[in-house]
Amino acid sequence: MATRSAPSTCSIDNRRRDNTMTASNLETVSENRSFGGTQGVYTHQSTETGTPMTFAVFVPDHAPGAKLPVLFYLSGLTCTHANVMEKGEYRQACAEQGIIFIAPDTSPRGDDVPDDEAYDFGKGAGFYVDATQEPWAANFRMRSYIEQELPALIAAHFPVDMERQGITGHSMGGHGALTIALRNPGRFRSVSAFSPIVSPLNCPWGEKALTGYLGDDRAKWREYDACALIEDGARLPDLLVDQGTADAFLATQLQTERLDEACQKADISAKIRMQEGYDHSYFFISTFMTDHVRWHAERL
Amino acid sequence: MATRSAPSTCSIDNRRRDNTMTASNLETVSENRSFGGTQGVYTHQSTETGTPMTFAVFVPDHAPGAKLPVLFYLSGLTCTHANVMEKGEYRQACAEQGIIFIAPDTSPRGDDVPDDEAYDFGKGAGFYVDATQEPWAANFRMRSYIEQELPALIAAHFPVDMERQGITGHSMGGHGALTIALRNPGRFRSVSAFSPIVSPLNCPWGEKALTGYLGDDRAKWREYDACALIEDGARLPDLLVDQGTADAFLATQLQTERLDEACQKADISAKIRMQEGYDHSYFFISTFMTDHVRWHAERL
Repeated sequence: MATRSAPSTCSIDNRRRDNTMTASNLETVSENRSFGGTQGVYTHQSTETGTPMTFAVFVPDHAPGAKLPVLFYLSGLTCTHANVMEKGEYRQACAEQGIIFIAPDTSPRGDDVPDDEAYDFGKGAGFYVDATQEPWAANFRMRSYIEQELPALIAAHFPVDMERQGITGHSMGGHGALTIALRNPGRFRSVSAFSPIVSPLNCPWGEKALTGYLGDDRAKWREYDACALIEDGARLPDLLVDQGTADAFLATQLQTERLDEACQKADISAKIRMQEGYDHSYFFISTFMTDHVRWHAERL
Repeated sequence: MATRSAPSTCSIDNRRRDNTMTASNLETVSENRSFGGTQGVYTHQSTETGTPMTFAVFVPDHAPGAKLPVLFYLSGLTCTHANVMEKGEYRQACAEQGIIFIAPDTSPRGDDVPDDEAYDFGKGAGFYVDATQEPWAANFRMRSYIEQELPALIAAHFPVDMERQGITGHSMGGHGALTIALRNPGRFRSVSAFSPIVSPLNCPWGEKALTGYLGDDRAKWREYDACALIEDGARLPDLLVDQGTADAFLATQLQTERLDEACQKADISAKIRMQEGYDHSYFFISTFMTDHVRWHAERL
């Protein structure tokens, strides 16, 4: 053979490699070498959702003992961890920048979990809230899962520097990234979103989901609405948003201009880019993923 | 909004935009803007296979009237056009290099097409041969489809310069790329492969498929075996191959060393890279896709 690559250095903290460890019950579903790093899929029993939860982690190769910054990516309606892992095209940029990329699921799963026939409520549509209404309250605790349980698990098992966290997401996951960052000032050094739902109070997806998970009192929805949180005083360091002009959900569901207005009123530095001709798909997300990873890398 | 992208230039030859055109019955399944170009999926009634055939085409933005070089990518067992379109991560490099990327299906499809229960024979496993045995002979004509019908269709409907063609593929599709290039000297300026089946005469996948499609006379298999074609005098300009060392099919099915030996004996310049720790998946393919697109761009 003409060329032989150098052997890879150890890519992942060894503590995580023991599939049988009991403290957190973290199990390895798969690990594949990719872009000079390891793309893994892991599952664990969640105390928040009461179900097994699966997530994907990309760890670039790094020096032994090094701790890397971490970027959380929250997915949109109907997605699992797999959509962005397969179609998101983030690994090259994360390997170049030395960033660990985390992709959780969008809801609890399993036969015992309540569901709805529609794609935009129930499984695959957790909306990153802690539900208070039945039958959802027991399992649909994606806010606490993403804000508390998952970061603690990541910190315990992967070589991350939790002082250097960024967050992003797509659509419902963009809503999740914005609201989680707004409610947790100082935790994330960098925030971005792809075609986010910016105001669930003012769109059909949001009204349906928040009514179902939280009940009719709209005052209780405000902590799950990026624009309302900003109006109520929450702030972000700065913000990058990409939004396609050919996105079929732009006018009715996403309404990016509401976020633009809220940021302007609150003097939040928001770089909101309308991308001509792009739609809501991963063909759009993947196109601008490298820009977002670099945006986060500059701030992490 | 803080930033607004420039409007896109016309990306695809207008002739193709008329979905109702009857000469070739080419229909647009979908078109999505991606990486400053258009990722399309198209279908047509194939005269070779007697079935509808679907393929993917990525066309980078280009000057009006310009003709771009074209890279054919042949997929592996079980795949359709969609696998590499979703997971192959070729669009950024093709946009940078101004290359049109074509991804056909791996076999005829449909309820009227004969099939086999196994994943490695029948639908999804056309092996880029013209079958001579029943019940396969009528539909399983992927050699003629890829060598004749598809290029003519592409030339008629997309802004391609057919004097500048390259070909690549993965696994069974690597076998297809190598054998098609070897049988058509001068047609392809550039040839590469990801983890190719290099000698169907000498592996279980090949023996099963070629027996089924071509019958027991192994002499008739030689035109579908890259190593045998080289032994029999066929040549390539030069060659890039990437092969993962952790590929579960390396020892029994792929046997990359046979291609290395054949190229050395025939004085074909082959850059065969063994990639440490990589497997047979798109996590591997996507990692080295940019290298391959650039390899082709330098020769196209």
